[in-house]
Amino acid sequence: MKFKAKIRDISSRGVLLHREDARTLGVLDGDRVQVINEVNGVAAPAFVETTSTLIDRGTIGIFRLTNERLCVLEGAAVEVRPALPPKSIGHIRKKMDGQKLGKDEMLEIMQDVVNDTISANELTAFVTASYIHELDMEEIEHLTRAMVDTGDRLQFSGHPIVDKHSIGGVPGNKISLLIVPIIAASGLKIPKTSSRAITGAGGTADLMEVLAPVEFAASEVQQMTEKAGGVIVWGGATNIAPADDRIILVEYPFKIDARGQMLASVMAKKFAIGADLVVIDIPVGENTKVHDVQDGRKLARDFIELGERLGMRVECALTYGESPVGRTIGPVLEIKEALSVLEGADVPNSLIQKSTSLAGIALEMAGKAARGTGQQVAADLLANGKALAKMKEIIAIQGGDPEVKAEDLVPGDHSFDVHAPDSGYIVGLNNRSLISLARTAGAPHDRGAGIYLHKKKGTRVEKGETIFSIYAEKAWRLQQALEEGRRLMPVVVEGMLLDRIPSEHWA
Amino acid sequence: MKFKAKIRDISSRGVLLHREDARTLGVLDGDRVQVINEVNGVAAPAFVETTSTLIDRGTIGIFRLTNERLCVLEGAAVEVRPALPPKSIGHIRKKMDGQKLGKDEMLEIMQDVVNDTISANELTAFVTASYIHELDMEEIEHLTRAMVDTGDRLQFSGHPIVDKHSIGGVPGNKISLLIVPIIAASGLKIPKTSSRAITGAGGTADLMEVLAPVEFAASEVQQMTEKAGGVIVWGGATNIAPADDRIILVEYPFKIDARGQMLASVMAKKFAIGADLVVIDIPVGENTKVHDVQDGRKLARDFIELGERLGMRVECALTYGESPVGRTIGPVLEIKEALSVLEGADVPNSLIQKSTSLAGIALEMAGKAARGTGQQVAADLLANGKALAKMKEIIAIQGGDPEVKAEDLVPGDHSFDVHAPDSGYIVGLNNRSLISLARTAGAPHDRGAGIYLHKKKGTRVEKGETIFSIYAEKAWRLQQALEEGRRLMPVVVEGMLLDRIPSEHWA
Repeated sequence: MKFKAKIRDISSRGVLLHREDARTLGVLDGDRVQVINEVNGVAAPAFVETTSTLIDRGTIGIFRLTNERLCVLEGAAVEVRPALPPKSIGHIRKKMDGQKLGKDEMLEIMQDVVNDTISANELTAFVTASYIHELDMEEIEHLTRAMVDTGDRLQFSGHPIVDKHSIGGVPGNKISLLIVPIIAASGLKIPKTSSRAITGAGGTADLMEVLAPVEFAASEVQQMTEKAGGVIVWGGATNIAPADDRIILVEYPFKIDARGQMLASVMAKKFAIGADLVVIDIPVGENTKVHDVQDGRKLARDFIELGERLGMRVECALTYGESPVGRTIGPVLEIKEALSVLEGADVPNSLIQKSTSLAGIALEMAGKAARGTGQQVAADLLANGKALAKMKEIIAIQGGDPEVKAEDLVPGDHSFDVHAPDSGYIVGLNNRSLISLARTAGAPHDRGAGIYLHKKKGTRVEKGETIFSIYAEKAWRLQQALEEGRRLMPVVVEGMLLDRIPSEHWA
Repeated sequence: MKFKAKIRDISSRGVLLHREDARTLGVLDGDRVQVINEVNGVAAPAFVETTSTLIDRGTIGIFRLTNERLCVLEGAAVEVRPALPPKSIGHIRKKMDGQKLGKDEMLEIMQDVVNDTISANELTAFVTASYIHELDMEEIEHLTRAMVDTGDRLQFSGHPIVDKHSIGGVPGNKISLLIVPIIAASGLKIPKTSSRAITGAGGTADLMEVLAPVEFAASEVQQMTEKAGGVIVWGGATNIAPADDRIILVEYPFKIDARGQMLASVMAKKFAIGADLVVIDIPVGENTKVHDVQDGRKLARDFIELGERLGMRVECALTYGESPVGRTIGPVLEIKEALSVLEGADVPNSLIQKSTSLAGIALEMAGKAARGTGQQVAADLLANGKALAKMKEIIAIQGGDPEVKAEDLVPGDHSFDVHAPDSGYIVGLNNRSLISLARTAGAPHDRGAGIYLHKKKGTRVEKGETIFSIYAEKAWRLQQALEEGRRLMPVVVEGMLLDRIPSEHWA
């Protein structure tokens, strides 16, 4: 059928047809058509939206992204034909019916995800079906390889390449900012791609962005790593395992983290950057993603097995996830804390311990330290200033100011100290509530927003002492955070909930 | 956060934000926000789309459907706040995790479906999860009631109200066009809402539209039924069980027909129109939705149980589904055939038999015929012209021409006869291929397109005799159908595939 084109400035792929024209063509909302530019012969697939008011019969609205391919001029003639759904739809249906998917099927689905050939609805059905009918290890391997094969890869000449990953859920987990310079200072290469916070108060990429740009193409990541030994960049700006980003977006409203997809998501990124040795930090605790040690061990075994299938050596560390790492939550506060440790501070202990022990595992795996001595070697690289020097090199190569010091970093102007309503011991810190509070205060977008914990779990606090401080860049954000704080009870002193105290303690 | 409004002519609900503004607000693509018109104070929820090119920072694109509620003027100020997801998301997640949903949870989900509070993605997750974790009968009852409660209902003063439904999959199943006038001629009321074809060559509504308008509001359906005793209208134009239409659209790409949703879909429509007595036609056959008699019996028991829970008496008939009903497929051809039977024709037998036997069940259930005599009573109402008179009344009340005769109805101008390549018996008719062929020829949109079967399954055909004819309104459609016919092998003569014959038999 022929139509007159009307270009519509919508940032999506698709075409808009009058309902009657759609009926004539025999297509419904969400159906696929092939659109052909009659002038240059270029064809592009598109999803149909229908309307009975917004467009005249005989006219087709072509959305911007679809027209980037077609290059149809306003008012020009296009031919539209119904198109068959891709084979992926059948594969997804197969998964819905509980069957296993093979290598080629996974690859076709991921190709169609990356090319926008399947709709977000259809991807949701795939994610839901794979969540319910859990992928087995073979399918997970296929999925991982398919994610890698549909994106960019790094190929280093020298080996080994090291990588690390922390399963999320623990606030203040800024350890990559120490581990990367320690590993790079040992002479190993560690091209660390990291995430921005989706539901957290700051992903590693959000933190690093306080110091330097983090958005680079895969080839730039490779060149910078060759020179500086390490980088800390945002994975989302590279085209590494791009299908994974789409899957994460689809999972996000349901807060699901299907085991198979999580394994594939983590390991695809490691595999694509060419990692040989991978250390995985699995925080265990009631308020993290892994609730007990049994689950943690099982997950560790899965990571190791998937690593073997892909030719990567993986070691996992189960870590304490009940309490924030260090004392800070939020980009500026966390960076300040990490830099101070690189500059020689010997507190906070939890941050130093965790960073050096995970870095130590990687150093042992790579033969840079004898078994049992890795953590000491890592601690030495911290203490002798080599890690700091390396961090400056990394900041510089990413385009930041290498002369930055911890003392230069100042959190938001607006702050509030939360005092202990009574003397006692801090018996509970709720990770989710702390994250939520930091987000309400503006983190991660407002870099200076966040939380400073003066007292950590298990410590004694006297009545009236400050337990934690909230920082914000904007007064209204601080106000919202205070309101949220009353509701959320992030800290428990000897069983007394902070939200039950008279509100003058808060505002 | 404050924005300057830019109204965007897009037929969907949503807003477009610059990516940086979205980050400042702390929302991602697909997240929910509350948009407030600062002038009139009206607030509306919307899903966020982000862009880094199509809109300036500080400006918000408001899509047409969202602005129908807000009434913001171009350039005016709006306030935007992040909004929490509705409780339904938690319910859907619960279903994904294999738990049962209660009455209130189902109702909340259906309310959010009808109000567009959950996205198509989120509905897809619900449909997928309910397909995999099959709904039990209690959940199906909740779902059915929720579909009814979120739409319009008919309330008749007189009872009983009769309804019928055919599970799809059989081409040419025009029996409602006989059953409705027969039932109404007996003095009973039958407000038949029917569907348009989604994947078929013509739903009952598509057929009836050849004779009269079929789009009416629920109140009009009720008034017309009170007067004429029956109607044949398109359910999609009423607001009866509107949530079901959304669910069907989501299922459509995957061609799934989850048992629970199918039961709820059928019975919600019966319940909402106030039916007391329901006859359900379950065609059984390899190429229909129900493949064997065991499955058919199980489905029948489910319908009966669900009916009992809802206070409706249900009887089911397992019918022969291997072969089209009557000889015609496609709107004009089918209407012509149905009218000719109402006018007194005694062929085709399969159509008369099926219609009178199903109508007979309803007549017996309603006490209009003694057990065992229903089909005869129905046949009498056909033979004595009362059903025809009633059909004219129905056509008239819906605004059609009651004087229409079968002979007035003429299929498309372009036709092609397919001849037998050899003498033998027709051993196979592939329903799906016949439907596909009729669709390619233009049905249901081109009312005159379709297929006339000269020879049905089991009959003898001599070499060169016409097996079936294809009709089309447009020459190019006929051409496409001929090409498709070569590929699809819709009719098998003694094991010889028609597509293997020399092509001069075809074109």
